[in-house]
Amino acid sequence: MDQHPWEEPQGSGSEIAFCLMSRRSIEVCLSPLLHGCHDFSGKCVVIIDVLRASSAVITGLSHGVSAFRPVAEPDDAMYWATRGYIPAAERGGQVAEGFRLGNSPFSYREGRWAGQKIALTTTNGTRAVLLSLSAEKVMIGGFLNQLAVVHQLLKFPGDVVLFCAGWKGQFSLEDTLCAGGFIAALSGYFQVSGDPAVAALALYKQHEHGLEQAVSGSSHYLRLASKGLADEIAFCLKRDLFNIVPVLMEGELVARSD
Amino acid sequence: MDQHPWEEPQGSGSEIAFCLMSRRSIEVCLSPLLHGCHDFSGKCVVIIDVLRASSAVITGLSHGVSAFRPVAEPDDAMYWATRGYIPAAERGGQVAEGFRLGNSPFSYREGRWAGQKIALTTTNGTRAVLLSLSAEKVMIGGFLNQLAVVHQLLKFPGDVVLFCAGWKGQFSLEDTLCAGGFIAALSGYFQVSGDPAVAALALYKQHEHGLEQAVSGSSHYLRLASKGLADEIAFCLKRDLFNIVPVLMEGELVARSD
Repeated sequence: MDQHPWEEPQGSGSEIAFCLMSRRSIEVCLSPLLHGCHDFSGKCVVIIDVLRASSAVITGLSHGVSAFRPVAEPDDAMYWATRGYIPAAERGGQVAEGFRLGNSPFSYREGRWAGQKIALTTTNGTRAVLLSLSAEKVMIGGFLNQLAVVHQLLKFPGDVVLFCAGWKGQFSLEDTLCAGGFIAALSGYFQVSGDPAVAALALYKQHEHGLEQAVSGSSHYLRLASKGLADEIAFCLKRDLFNIVPVLMEGELVARSD
Repeated sequence: MDQHPWEEPQGSGSEIAFCLMSRRSIEVCLSPLLHGCHDFSGKCVVIIDVLRASSAVITGLSHGVSAFRPVAEPDDAMYWATRGYIPAAERGGQVAEGFRLGNSPFSYREGRWAGQKIALTTTNGTRAVLLSLSAEKVMIGGFLNQLAVVHQLLKFPGDVVLFCAGWKGQFSLEDTLCAGGFIAALSGYFQVSGDPAVAALALYKQHEHGLEQAVSGSSHYLRLASKGLADEIAFCLKRDLFNIVPVLMEGELVARSD
């Protein structure tokens, strides 16, 4: 980022004063299997699934999709199809059997689904959303909307958990790097809390000028690149292409912007 | 380390040839809660609980303790006391109620328990040992015996999992840094496998010349330092003080050296 987002925070004077006075905490949950180590109540949870659920939802909402409803299983997506939703399902990095849409960000561009609602299930990202329902607020973050998320978090009055969706419960490098990027932008205003956050920030600082190279060694990169998805990965690592934040409202992820 | 350990591997010519020919994998399990993401069968698992179970066991065996028997609960330690073992238990970073010994490395120095066997339960480290029983071989590693462990791993013919014990299921910085140190020493001979291993190596490379400073920001450091244990932490971060590797044999950790 060329400009520090907190130089011009969006919001009223009282909100800015609040940011300066308090030292809220920011922590990182490194995997859905570790969510029991964190207490989400009263906090804002940011779900990070860079490859690719976060990136698909951010891209879709930026291209006119009305809402994404995160659901647990392909059968749930089919159920919501009977109520007017477009069903979408990813399993194992591919469009699930019997579906036409998965979690490819490219499939949600060009206004193809403008005005429609999507019921989406993915291996990792939607699972993390459904594990976060005890939080005060749930939003979706990625490299694609990092600055917009930072602005939203500066306005949120409580603590923050960055929840890395990972891959089938395992720690993933790209999500942790993205979490570290959020912390780097916010550490002046938040207390960096716990070893996962310290580690994520350190990893990000080490690789912030070579994200693509760092991620190119990750398991997820190799898995997706072998399926011809290198262009999509490069897209998901672009920063601040979009200015919206998907926020969970009554079971649906809808776009919020400043 | 001033010298790369693989410059002079201990072992027969055929063992060395095996090391050079094969590309075994080395992976990292970041927390006991993530052990289900790893398959230990046929592999050597190195349990890393720098603060302080690993360091206590390494120190004790180096000062004449015959064996440590890792057990799950304080009651189990008391049971083994009826069979001639010295009972030891740590809970929440302190000697557990009703015990005289915990997991302080300092309490196992000076030959006080020479020739004795200890039945030890700790919050994190012994739990990780008991989760690793499906492995081909289980050993204990820390900064205190890093070079000795590296030599043992070069001689082991299969894949390796570095198992960070963490703190109550949570990722810990000091264990991950130690795992990264092992990978740095072994990456010429092993395929670094999976995002946790890539991340551990990157963190270690970032901090290898300032380990104490890096760990001083960790949750565990702050927890123990507040109890006046800063000297013990500094001891646990020293490298290669001892030349033995605790190896699990018939339920007991006993000393092995080249």
